[in-house]
Amino acid sequence: MNKVVTFGEIMLRLSTERHLRFGQSQRFNATYGGGEFNVAVSLANYGVAAEFVTRLPDNEIGQCALKEIRKMNVDSQNVIFGGDRLGIYFLETGAGNRGSNVVYDRANSAIATIEKGAFNWEKIFEGKTWFHWSGITAAISENAAAECLIAIQTAHRLGLTISCDLNYRSKLWKYGKQPKEVMPEMLQYCNVILGDIDTAYFMLGLEKVDPDYTNEALLHDYYSKLLNHCPDLKIAATTLRYSVSASHQRIGGILFDGNKIYKAVVKEVTPVVDRVGTGDAFMGGLVYSLIVTPNDLQRTVDFAVAACCLKHTIVGDYNLATLEEIENIVNGDASGKVSR
Amino acid sequence: MNKVVTFGEIMLRLSTERHLRFGQSQRFNATYGGGEFNVAVSLANYGVAAEFVTRLPDNEIGQCALKEIRKMNVDSQNVIFGGDRLGIYFLETGAGNRGSNVVYDRANSAIATIEKGAFNWEKIFEGKTWFHWSGITAAISENAAAECLIAIQTAHRLGLTISCDLNYRSKLWKYGKQPKEVMPEMLQYCNVILGDIDTAYFMLGLEKVDPDYTNEALLHDYYSKLLNHCPDLKIAATTLRYSVSASHQRIGGILFDGNKIYKAVVKEVTPVVDRVGTGDAFMGGLVYSLIVTPNDLQRTVDFAVAACCLKHTIVGDYNLATLEEIENIVNGDASGKVSR
Amino acid sequence: MNKVVTFGEIMLRLSTERHLRFGQSQRFNATYGGGEFNVAVSLANYGVAAEFVTRLPDNEIGQCALKEIRKMNVDSQNVIFGGDRLGIYFLETGAGNRGSNVVYDRANSAIATIEKGAFNWEKIFEGKTWFHWSGITAAISENAAAECLIAIQTAHRLGLTISCDLNYRSKLWKYGKQPKEVMPEMLQYCNVILGDIDTAYFMLGLEKVDPDYTNEALLHDYYSKLLNHCPDLKIAATTLRYSVSASHQRIGGILFDGNKIYKAVVKEVTPVVDRVGTGDAFMGGLVYSLIVTPNDLQRTVDFAVAACCLKHTIVGDYNLATLEEIENIVNGDASGKVSR
Amino acid sequence: MNKVVTFGEIMLRLSTERHLRFGQSQRFNATYGGGEFNVAVSLANYGVAAEFVTRLPDNEIGQCALKEIRKMNVDSQNVIFGGDRLGIYFLETGAGNRGSNVVYDRANSAIATIEKGAFNWEKIFEGKTWFHWSGITAAISENAAAECLIAIQTAHRLGLTISCDLNYRSKLWKYGKQPKEVMPEMLQYCNVILGDIDTAYFMLGLEKVDPDYTNEALLHDYYSKLLNHCPDLKIAATTLRYSVSASHQRIGGILFDGNKIYKAVVKEVTPVVDRVGTGDAFMGGLVYSLIVTPNDLQRTVDFAVAACCLKHTIVGDYNLATLEEIENIVNGDASGKVSR
Amino acid sequence: MNKVVTFGEIMLRLSTERHLRFGQSQRFNATYGGGEFNVAVSLANYGVAAEFVTRLPDNEIGQCALKEIRKMNVDSQNVIFGGDRLGIYFLETGAGNRGSNVVYDRANSAIATIEKGAFNWEKIFEGKTWFHWSGITAAISENAAAECLIAIQTAHRLGLTISCDLNYRSKLWKYGKQPKEVMPEMLQYCNVILGDIDTAYFMLGLEKVDPDYTNEALLHDYYSKLLNHCPDLKIAATTLRYSVSASHQRIGGILFDGNKIYKAVVKEVTPVVDRVGTGDAFMGGLVYSLIVTPNDLQRTVDFAVAACCLKHTIVGDYNLATLEEIENIVNGDASGKVSR
Amino acid sequence: MNKVVTFGEIMLRLSTERHLRFGQSQRFNATYGGGEFNVAVSLANYGVAAEFVTRLPDNEIGQCALKEIRKMNVDSQNVIFGGDRLGIYFLETGAGNRGSNVVYDRANSAIATIEKGAFNWEKIFEGKTWFHWSGITAAISENAAAECLIAIQTAHRLGLTISCDLNYRSKLWKYGKQPKEVMPEMLQYCNVILGDIDTAYFMLGLEKVDPDYTNEALLHDYYSKLLNHCPDLKIAATTLRYSVSASHQRIGGILFDGNKIYKAVVKEVTPVVDRVGTGDAFMGGLVYSLIVTPNDLQRTVDFAVAACCLKHTIVGDYNLATLEEIENIVNGDASGKVSR
Repeated sequence: MNKVVTFGEIMLRLSTERHLRFGQSQRFNATYGGGEFNVAVSLANYGVAAEFVTRLPDNEIGQCALKEIRKMNVDSQNVIFGGDRLGIYFLETGAGNRGSNVVYDRANSAIATIEKGAFNWEKIFEGKTWFHWSGITAAISENAAAECLIAIQTAHRLGLTISCDLNYRSKLWKYGKQPKEVMPEMLQYCNVILGDIDTAYFMLGLEKVDPDYTNEALLHDYYSKLLNHCPDLKIAATTLRYSVSASHQRIGGILFDGNKIYKAVVKEVTPVVDRVGTGDAFMGGLVYSLIVTPNDLQRTVDFAVAACCLKHTIVGDYNLATLEEIENIVNGDASGKVSR
Repeated sequence: MNKVVTFGEIMLRLSTERHLRFGQSQRFNATYGGGEFNVAVSLANYGVAAEFVTRLPDNEIGQCALKEIRKMNVDSQNVIFGGDRLGIYFLETGAGNRGSNVVYDRANSAIATIEKGAFNWEKIFEGKTWFHWSGITAAISENAAAECLIAIQTAHRLGLTISCDLNYRSKLWKYGKQPKEVMPEMLQYCNVILGDIDTAYFMLGLEKVDPDYTNEALLHDYYSKLLNHCPDLKIAATTLRYSVSASHQRIGGILFDGNKIYKAVVKEVTPVVDRVGTGDAFMGGLVYSLIVTPNDLQRTVDFAVAACCLKHTIVGDYNLATLEEIENIVNGDASGKVSR
Repeated sequence: MNKVVTFGEIMLRLSTERHLRFGQSQRFNATYGGGEFNVAVSLANYGVAAEFVTRLPDNEIGQCALKEIRKMNVDSQNVIFGGDRLGIYFLETGAGNRGSNVVYDRANSAIATIEKGAFNWEKIFEGKTWFHWSGITAAISENAAAECLIAIQTAHRLGLTISCDLNYRSKLWKYGKQPKEVMPEMLQYCNVILGDIDTAYFMLGLEKVDPDYTNEALLHDYYSKLLNHCPDLKIAATTLRYSVSASHQRIGGILFDGNKIYKAVVKEVTPVVDRVGTGDAFMGGLVYSLIVTPNDLQRTVDFAVAACCLKHTIVGDYNLATLEEIENIVNGDASGKVSR
Repeated sequence: MNKVVTFGEIMLRLSTERHLRFGQSQRFNATYGGGEFNVAVSLANYGVAAEFVTRLPDNEIGQCALKEIRKMNVDSQNVIFGGDRLGIYFLETGAGNRGSNVVYDRANSAIATIEKGAFNWEKIFEGKTWFHWSGITAAISENAAAECLIAIQTAHRLGLTISCDLNYRSKLWKYGKQPKEVMPEMLQYCNVILGDIDTAYFMLGLEKVDPDYTNEALLHDYYSKLLNHCPDLKIAATTLRYSVSASHQRIGGILFDGNKIYKAVVKEVTPVVDRVGTGDAFMGGLVYSLIVTPNDLQRTVDFAVAACCLKHTIVGDYNLATLEEIENIVNGDASGKVSR
Repeated sequence: MNKVVTFGEIMLRLSTERHLRFGQSQRFNATYGGGEFNVAVSLANYGVAAEFVTRLPDNEIGQCALKEIRKMNVDSQNVIFGGDRLGIYFLETGAGNRGSNVVYDRANSAIATIEKGAFNWEKIFEGKTWFHWSGITAAISENAAAECLIAIQTAHRLGLTISCDLNYRSKLWKYGKQPKEVMPEMLQYCNVILGDIDTAYFMLGLEKVDPDYTNEALLHDYYSKLLNHCPDLKIAATTLRYSVSASHQRIGGILFDGNKIYKAVVKEVTPVVDRVGTGDAFMGGLVYSLIVTPNDLQRTVDFAVAACCLKHTIVGDYNLATLEEIENIVNGDASGKVSR
Repeated sequence: MNKVVTFGEIMLRLSTERHLRFGQSQRFNATYGGGEFNVAVSLANYGVAAEFVTRLPDNEIGQCALKEIRKMNVDSQNVIFGGDRLGIYFLETGAGNRGSNVVYDRANSAIATIEKGAFNWEKIFEGKTWFHWSGITAAISENAAAECLIAIQTAHRLGLTISCDLNYRSKLWKYGKQPKEVMPEMLQYCNVILGDIDTAYFMLGLEKVDPDYTNEALLHDYYSKLLNHCPDLKIAATTLRYSVSASHQRIGGILFDGNKIYKAVVKEVTPVVDRVGTGDAFMGGLVYSLIVTPNDLQRTVDFAVAACCLKHTIVGDYNLATLEEIENIVNGDASGKVSR
């Protein structure tokens, strides 16, 4: 049986209600999430054993995050406590021509200030088959990046499949290093990478590119080069997003296995209930499908896209769409009929 | 003056807020509704005297339902009390590709456990001109179906017009009988039926059909056969619903009077604020128009479609659109301008 | 540095939540706004010093309005206190085919019952460069109209630029005079007018017209005639609104400077979060652009349209869109991307 | 069977949440109530047929009030429509040493601007046995007072029992007449009066008094004089209220029947959930007990006090305590045990 | 290390907000709880490994209950799925003289309709040291009682300590058997019983008693007799509750170990935030203290009383007071100082 | 005319609703406050010109704080922008025996990371008469303490009256210095100090004392010694707080002017709506009274105590009690009567 470990940050998300702007809000909805945790929740929802590893502050807010992990049926047995605070981000939900707005307040979080060797990765990975991390952990602090590298190396040594969501956020590389100084070493052990081609090239220190995702031949070359630079890479995937407005997105996806390009049909997503975490939902769908239907890559990309689409209708950071709902869309029914 | 009686179940509806999934909800919005009650509310709103007959549990929750009936200006003088509980249904409101989800918890409700002869229908129908019931009452329990049949037979004997919304829900026929064992006897007294052709055929025990609603000649034959099987049937109508997504519906309607097919232009409905009760809104519009403009069947189907469209914008089970709002749409203005 | 004064009414707005109808609401969201105040807020948001002049009742509800003025960084130093009540309006937010509904309860408000000479306009206008008023103030009472005329005349004498939003509301001319008896004198001092051409003609007592806004030659003539009747008028502008549904509007704009017609491309606005105050947002954008980029009239009308579009996504009466958000749309990006 | 008619004003009440001050509130809870309506609701709750007569504005807010009347099972068949607005009052709920604060905005309401002869009292009182009015109606406008006098005179002629809650509010006698110019004529037909002795003396134009409610002999004299001035008066009653703090009240009551003083034991009320309408709850209990147990005046005053106490625990203007709850307290159990 | 298993029902609780009565509520707060689950939560909060065993319906509402179990760190590995519905109870929160009101809607719940042998108790109790059940499970249905007896017998055979909260609710013994027909057999294996003495006597079929809890000699005899009738009983305890009002309770406790009476000082509890589950909090404190400080029975009863007191300040069914908070009270500080 | 400047931190406060614990909360109420800002708000409410000086982060959350300052009519003209974040604190509101709980997340706030010389104090103090600061600013960081010292020295040189609320919080002295290393220099310029005697002694590095506030002779000596150590000190005051429970406080106060002890009668405060900021309310009352009635020190301490009491009934950090409400209590009426 497959058991997946994800490692990273879980934050308190404070979002305004009813499309209110920050300056109008007298209350915030409080939820908890973060890229790698969101992937673990997706997997747990789909029936795959998932564990999330992080450090939480030893205060009531840290306990709230722990309760959320437990509630979502994600294993928290290796979560440790320490540091000063839980990272926070504020979210103002946009509509129409007004985009959503995120204000980060995540500096000096418990996971960002982690000390090297805080986790016993050998023990954590015992009996596990898959390790997932993301570029965010590499970006928040030197300490977090270092710990993540140890995790990756250990996972590699122990034979786990390793996946990464590149998740480049320029605002987060503030600790004095560039992605290309950090990421290549981390990515060399990866088997599955999700990200835009230009982001991947940038993080690997390759020349800047601006790929045309409708040109299949070109894509083949671009992805091939990516695989060449990451010796263990087997699968490269990209979420295609066309933003008509904050309330209307069009979502597709591409997957390359070294031989062939698999493309999912672009789907209309309107209205957008919650834009955040939709990439994580794609990632969760990708890992799930690679685990349960490893030989049907077309279904894999279709599943990831369907999961991503449905996440847009769900409040909060992580995806609560059910397997059945996703499969209905994979099978062509996106009509949103009432179930009764 | 016309006075309409409807008979059936009123339930407590518990719905999640802001598109939240059940597992995210710490509170439920509580409203009260049910197919036949919803029709009574429509009529009362349009100025037609309407009475709702049901059994409520003799507890505070039953009193809440009674307060709702009164608030909506529906006569409750023949509501009786008894049984153990008010039926409940939970509603999770979908969006985009995610459909709404209903969880029923209505077994053993006060109306489902009613004892035969609980109502004095002769007295109830005194001075009344129209009786409306639906297939749901026939489906919830043998007792409810039996009482409904008595009501129908009494109404027929006393010369009331009888209408039925077929409202087939496979989940509800759990008491050991099939629709075709129960419904034909009940439908034989009906003068107006709302429902899909295939549902009507199925309930009457006719051969399975899959009608093409764009083929008028065929529809004529299908509906004619329906009228042939229901000796008192004068009007058969069908709501046409095309579900683009949970947030976008397209609504049309068809009406047949034994001679001619009347079709309403399909209208765009987006966004969908509340999907539930839209069929009841159609039914309410149908009864109203047949009462006040019995000779203008084109207007009747147009009115029913407009009422149904507007219900999609209204929270709760029943339609709160005003006559003026519906007539604006019938008259071609669906622009939703501000009234100020 | 430019300093703008606006004069008029600020009301308590009580709106239902979640598209509820009035009869379903157990609570109202309370905000404060009014056409001329909304323009002042827009300007303050854009960094232009703005002052709002009004009369508020000397009770706690009046104090709430004062707190709102202060919060929005609008100067309130010349607000006076007196009268009996703050005007109120109730708002039911529509969706799809159901339009929003406004119920006014603003008679006998503090500003409507103002006594002539209550304000020392000479002092108020000291150091100010622009005065904005609207047809609403002329419409609410004879006293308000008279005071507004004094303000206009004083502003004119002191050399301020004067702008007016015609804002015709038939419900508000109840005090025994017609617009054409009052407005021509007030408009003769205006330098900038926003309004439909037919409204302008009607208020000036000119013949009734029904202009085709796509016919540029005709528009030229219509606007020219308008300028001819208002000796000081330099700029006439019109908001173009096409209402697809209560949730979907299409917004464009036209501006004429005596020589040339400037048109903004029509933009899609969907969904509409709040329809009220969108005209005021246009006006606010117009004044701002005329102040900061007086020589780029194309940009002016583009800016006003973009401001108007964004206001549709913002809850409440006034526009909280930022300069940066508006300029993004002016520069062609209406994709509503997440900012993070 | 007894049937009671009450006549007066029903208002929209807008109250802040969670002890917030007005200036902190972004939303108001909306309920509907008014002294005479509240008495009707009490009676309907206790099983006595009750009707409320008023004038409502013919707009959506008036419809909301009508829905509330219906919901509470109070007969509304003689409610008429007209006028401009529903009266409003704003309520800020105090706590501890901070008292609740009411801001009235009820001038020019539909009932205040009523025209003489608007109601057909002969018809309204057909089959009725009791008429209740209050000093508030006499206080809001000359028109309302005049109409109320007609109602009183008609009720008297038709032999109904007439009760009045003096309800003196100095803020409301603004139309140019003093209570003593208006009330004596209205009170001369009354059979039951609720009010402080000093208020009664003041309204009747008697000398100013400051009665000591613990001096029974003196009270006897005071009340006797009151009865002497009102030829039809049979019962005079007073609510005793000792305000420890906004959250802690002590409630007693006194009743005089011309012969004997009946006193209820003072009860502790803490915490106070809602202070408003507690006098109306006393009045409702008084009328109810005089109707159903006319010969047990000790129980009557005990019942009125218990009803008043329980109202302090109930949100909104009117009393929702049940007969059983009130009787429990009358019978000595005020322990507030859980019912399960 | 101690590991505790509790067995019983978890329900959806729907409570009104802000002391609203049922008929005023447009929304319900939704939480999940039940006597035996609440004890498990207490233990988990105090750091004792706790598992809850039940049957949940296989629908979204059952999943909500499961999420709650997980969130509270209670082991759910032996929860099974089946049956039709989750039990529900409605709660109206009282204040002052108005008691809280519970409406049960728990018939035919998943656990009430359980089939004998549904659980593998041998396996469940593996490695466990304590089993807790309550009289509620014996009361809801014959099936539940039968399954509970099997659990008790198995626990006894495997040497677990067995505790029971008698929890008599007359409304729940509806399936045709009296407590004295069912409970004696179940109680004979018990080592710890919480309940009033009269309830214990009643359930065991002993003569009716009305004990005076201030008479220590008498109590000694009463409890001794109780121990004589339950061969394995070591500890009998009783919560003492004096209800001043719904908002003010006075809480004490008594414990008897066969030799000595231990009494806790009665504590003032005001205001009561949530009255429900306070007995379960006492029980949770009792089990905890008996596990961690088995030789300090005075502290045990003090701890249970303190836990019970604090639960009154906490919303929901189960106790979220921390060990530190409880110990502060045990140590004499009930001043409720701010922690900052 | 007096003009007061306060200097310090304003934070985002996130509080749970309805006495919920952190782990139960899905939303937080968001308000803004901080000791020195709260004093400025009190003064502005009482009609004294007040300015607040701070540094805010240049993001949307900083803008929210700025809006709050403006809304409360506190001058913000010298607020500067910079740094990374607004300080946050989480508040869980207790009840009864459960105290409120504060979780600080204020490290690295904009004001804590301020650089020396960021403010032009000479200019800020121009035309000002009073400067208020608190021990919190000295405690949050070395930079803040240094900047505060400059402000104090400048104020002293310019002849402003200087007041300080000692506000000792052990959690906040984390930057490597003890209060006695920092505070003596800052306090030597102070004219008014609010604080416990033991806190004052501790901060000044005097011997540890545990004063008995009922022993007037002793108090005289203690305060005299305090004045001896602070050359410019004229007034020393102390809030007396007796915590019966989180919901019930007893508040008194003491003031010493070098000659005489002034004591305010202890007042009952129940229920406590909001415990936070009550000390700041005392301070605000103290400054106000010293400004407007400098020669009536008995009234000064009475006013400060009454302000403090009323603040307990008000949600949020700062006091919104009106002058009239406070004076009512000073004059002996704490009955909390309804104002209508």
